[in-house]
Amino acid sequence: MNRPKIWVLRLGHRRERDKRVTTHLFLASRAFGADGVFYSGERDGNVEKSVEKVNKSWGGAFEVKYCRSWKQTVSEWKRSSGEVVHLTMYGLPLQEIVSELRRSPKDKLIVVGGAKVPGAVYGLADWNVAVTSQPHSEVSALGVFLHELLEGIELLKQFKRAECRIVPQPRGKKVVKTNP
Amino acid sequence: MNRPKIWVLRLGHRRERDKRVTTHLFLASRAFGADGVFYSGERDGNVEKSVEKVNKSWGGAFEVKYCRSWKQTVSEWKRSSGEVVHLTMYGLPLQEIVSELRRSPKDKLIVVGGAKVPGAVYGLADWNVAVTSQPHSEVSALGVFLHELLEGIELLKQFKRAECRIVPQPRGKKVVKTNP
Repeated sequence: MNRPKIWVLRLGHRRERDKRVTTHLFLASRAFGADGVFYSGERDGNVEKSVEKVNKSWGGAFEVKYCRSWKQTVSEWKRSSGEVVHLTMYGLPLQEIVSELRRSPKDKLIVVGGAKVPGAVYGLADWNVAVTSQPHSEVSALGVFLHELLEGIELLKQFKRAECRIVPQPRGKKVVKTNP
Repeated sequence: MNRPKIWVLRLGHRRERDKRVTTHLFLASRAFGADGVFYSGERDGNVEKSVEKVNKSWGGAFEVKYCRSWKQTVSEWKRSSGEVVHLTMYGLPLQEIVSELRRSPKDKLIVVGGAKVPGAVYGLADWNVAVTSQPHSEVSALGVFLHELLEGIELLKQFKRAECRIVPQPRGKKVVKTNP
């Protein structure tokens, strides 16, 4: 696809407490068309392995990269002319600014908070965006954000080099092995 | 709003393992316009309290109900002329059937799996719907599903009797107390 790159940055991962939510966040990033995720906080081999397993079975080239310093990741992103979008319930409503975001040809880094979001994030972001101004989940916020940003074309994404593929059914499960 | 009721049914909650993901799922249900959730599996006072706290601060009348038997909840829903939509990566693509779902005036019960989804769910559901045929998260699946079903009007929802309310900002946080 000839479109700006989209990466997600998960802040402050905690191995024990966040393992499932972070895994869900990474898989949602992959399923809804992001190219990869960075994460800061505690490095976590298990979360990385979960994503690798999904890539192996279901295809695609989704990447996971640990970053020791989220600030450095953000400034490198901006230096290479990318934009930074921070998802927060305190930001401007998604529906009011998404068309402006879609028009911008720049690569997008979507920053998603963990436990406590450092205040500096609000200032460093080009956009602070609220997917509703209600508390819910970074997983649903990111899913709906990417779905809006990509206007639903992410739902049609084909993942290359998959070992298996689902054949949609009105009832039950049908999975076929794909030829390498 | 003069529209069919929307409830979510979370299957097989496990107190220890699922507490955060289930809380995220319930809050996403609330934020994206569902009227309430049922859940089966282990009863969990902490998850219920988390939602009550959010209701108190941020308003609305979102309900959480525990059900000992999900089958009974599903059959009662169907008996009172409601429809059942099961979210599963094996189902029919959201984008192909959402307009049919929107046209149906019936109340909707959205069934969302836990660890292992009993096979019977596929047969009892009126619709098995895939929000992508990729593995991700019930939280992102539900968020995007409700956002599509309600065509984005859920983003404008006002929650009544809130103690506080966010005033969207391009940077930083602004929360105001609301008058009772």
